Amino acid sequence: MNSLNRLTEIANQQAIERIQSSRIFLTEMSQAKEKIPFFDGYTLLHSGPPLEWSNMNTAMRNAICGAIVYEGWAENLSDAFDMADQGKIKFGSDNENNAVGPMAGIISPTMPVFVFENQIFGNKAYVTINEGLGKTLRFGANDESVIERLKWIEKTLAPILKEALLISGPIDITSIITQGIQRGDECHNRNKASNNLFVNQMAPWMVKCSSSREDIAGALTFMAGNDHFFLNLSMGNSKATMDAIHDIEHCSIVSCMSTNGYQLGIQVSGTGRQWFTAPSPYAKGKYFEGYDESDASTVMGDSYISEACGIGAFAMGASLGIGQFIGIDTKQAQDYSLGMYEITVSEHEHFKIPVFDFRGTPLGIDIRKVISSGRLPIINTGIAYKNPGVGQIGAGIVYPPMACFRKAYESYLQINQ
Amino acid sequence: MNSLNRLTEIANQQAIERIQSSRIFLTEMSQAKEKIPFFDGYTLLHSGPPLEWSNMNTAMRNAICGAIVYEGWAENLSDAFDMADQGKIKFGSDNENNAVGPMAGIISPTMPVFVFENQIFGNKAYVTINEGLGKTLRFGANDESVIERLKWIEKTLAPILKEALLISGPIDITSIITQGIQRGDECHNRNKASNNLFVNQMAPWMVKCSSSREDIAGALTFMAGNDHFFLNLSMGNSKATMDAIHDIEHCSIVSCMSTNGYQLGIQVSGTGRQWFTAPSPYAKGKYFEGYDESDASTVMGDSYISEACGIGAFAMGASLGIGQFIGIDTKQAQDYSLGMYEITVSEHEHFKIPVFDFRGTPLGIDIRKVISSGRLPIINTGIAYKNPGVGQIGAGIVYPPMACFRKAYESYLQINQ
Repeated sequence: MNSLNRLTEIANQQAIERIQSSRIFLTEMSQAKEKIPFFDGYTLLHSGPPLEWSNMNTAMRNAICGAIVYEGWAENLSDAFDMADQGKIKFGSDNENNAVGPMAGIISPTMPVFVFENQIFGNKAYVTINEGLGKTLRFGANDESVIERLKWIEKTLAPILKEALLISGPIDITSIITQGIQRGDECHNRNKASNNLFVNQMAPWMVKCSSSREDIAGALTFMAGNDHFFLNLSMGNSKATMDAIHDIEHCSIVSCMSTNGYQLGIQVSGTGRQWFTAPSPYAKGKYFEGYDESDASTVMGDSYISEACGIGAFAMGASLGIGQFIGIDTKQAQDYSLGMYEITVSEHEHFKIPVFDFRGTPLGIDIRKVISSGRLPIINTGIAYKNPGVGQIGAGIVYPPMACFRKAYESYLQINQ
Repeated sequence: MNSLNRLTEIANQQAIERIQSSRIFLTEMSQAKEKIPFFDGYTLLHSGPPLEWSNMNTAMRNAICGAIVYEGWAENLSDAFDMADQGKIKFGSDNENNAVGPMAGIISPTMPVFVFENQIFGNKAYVTINEGLGKTLRFGANDESVIERLKWIEKTLAPILKEALLISGPIDITSIITQGIQRGDECHNRNKASNNLFVNQMAPWMVKCSSSREDIAGALTFMAGNDHFFLNLSMGNSKATMDAIHDIEHCSIVSCMSTNGYQLGIQVSGTGRQWFTAPSPYAKGKYFEGYDESDASTVMGDSYISEACGIGAFAMGASLGIGQFIGIDTKQAQDYSLGMYEITVSEHEHFKIPVFDFRGTPLGIDIRKVISSGRLPIINTGIAYKNPGVGQIGAGIVYPPMACFRKAYESYLQINQ
């Protein structure tokens, strides 16, 4: 082993220890502008690496227009489009602002955000509340029903959760994921059991809030009825965990993966916050009735940090039910997880796959191993319709482009020359 | 194939169709004496085949004494014991009264019961509310804390559930089990995910009840914090399902398995309600710290109807986590399920085992196959302490005695001569 490899092994071990020891708590419900200094006037955050309006795909543009109407900066979607098109909105990347968002990942100043805290390393992460499946802003839908739901989330649901968290104290999200993975979730595209666990834990506190019983019942119905409500909590867990491994010298572990629909980018611990990008790919998957690949948008979203954190497609061996959702059989689901041990540094101490005799999930994508094996990390993903008004049309799997890893590896070699 | 075998195949198919088409709903919360005609004065129901006081083991006697104090028929446990010992209590079998109860399975007149309805065949089943793990009446504990909890269940929890069910309408328990088995439950000794699902479904309705918010929060905390709360609901599902297959001429499928701690009995569809009994065995299992086999009571409880209905140990392949609770590894858990296909008639259409490529659980124990193969059905079970004041001390697996099947098979041959 040459000396760089030796230094990298030590650095990677340190990164894995940080990931394994991280314990993420949901501590608070707040408002984006109260927590994220980026927000100032006409400012919006989006998923993936930084991106200009001119390069955004239709789904993301539609989500942006919806957010502008939601904020009241324009009266209708057409005016909103003009505003953005005339350069009146300043855009930023969720990930560069301690935040993540699924799909388009739009965060606007008045949106409520969950606040996560890494109780070991002290860093925080911010995520919006999940809107449900189908016609939602994150999938590029932006009609009145979408805006209305966002307003209900802000005015009715968030205050209940805010008050409940004040009396409950911090909620251990890492523990819920640990249990969820024992119950068939992989906590990226399947969150059913984890969501139930979260609702079970919150319900007694929500009952004690000052909101009306009708509103509390409505909040519980919404949360229990939206299997992906927990996705955003899982993403907060991954973000607050992976943000603890940035900038470890010599480290070759992927700290972030994310796509804005134009470019998919990865970050690597030892190369700092630099993005290594390539064009966003399309997913292969199972489409809802009436849709096919020609209807799909390029993949979008910050949720690919799940796989970097050892869950999602990396944990599909624990989540055989996800196969039916994304169109693979149970053997494939297990094989996908098994394949990931070849490009990772460790196995997760807490997230364990029952069918592999409770072996830990593959943890810590090593760009050196990706390059030497030619094997790419697998990601499972929702698929958005390319035009507005529809939302999600399927789910499937996707591989980040090899070019991202090649660029990252070159940079890693250069830095460590 | 001789003609009896041919008739039996047809009859068994009919029984399987009845089981598969059964859909069990929780319709109502009531009081035992309002629903079960057996109750009249000093009357108590217990698990297993009918049993006299003189033959009850210590754990069941203690549960009986606790129930007498709970009912206010005696002021203390010593007086309660005298009452029972002097023959002042009339005992009956849960199963013979459309009821089931875990472990000692004591049902007393004022206890609240869940009412289940088989919406296809119209029959009903009654089950008490689960008290939690550890020191509980069903495990033979009977001190003040046990009685106090039973009173809280009656006075605070049951009224909330009663009112919630009035506004929610019937709750589909079969559907919850179907989902739970996808999430690592086998719905006999592991009910975690199913319990979460049930609480998620009930919480919004509970919020709307007229009880105080504090009581509702307390009820939710109790239900969400007791992983076995759902056990009694699962038992209601199995009982209301299996009661639909009694008395099918020529049928060789086990309709009921249950043990009172003195004798374990089985019933077979084609031989009517006759019990075929043999001495209750001891379980082999994993004991909580500080206990071993010498501390154990013989096995008790009506919950063995789970395995007759295709869940419990028969579904352990879907529930690899249960292994850690009962002391077996993941391969054993799968092998136990696989072995049961050899003595069953069919595979469950709804309850599917992900790791077997979503093959249905083994369904319908055929006494002919048990006799010809020499293979006994496997059951997983809680283990009670033999003396009062402790409750559960472990969990494990147990086989019903072959003598039960031999007697049943003889009777089946005789009836069909």
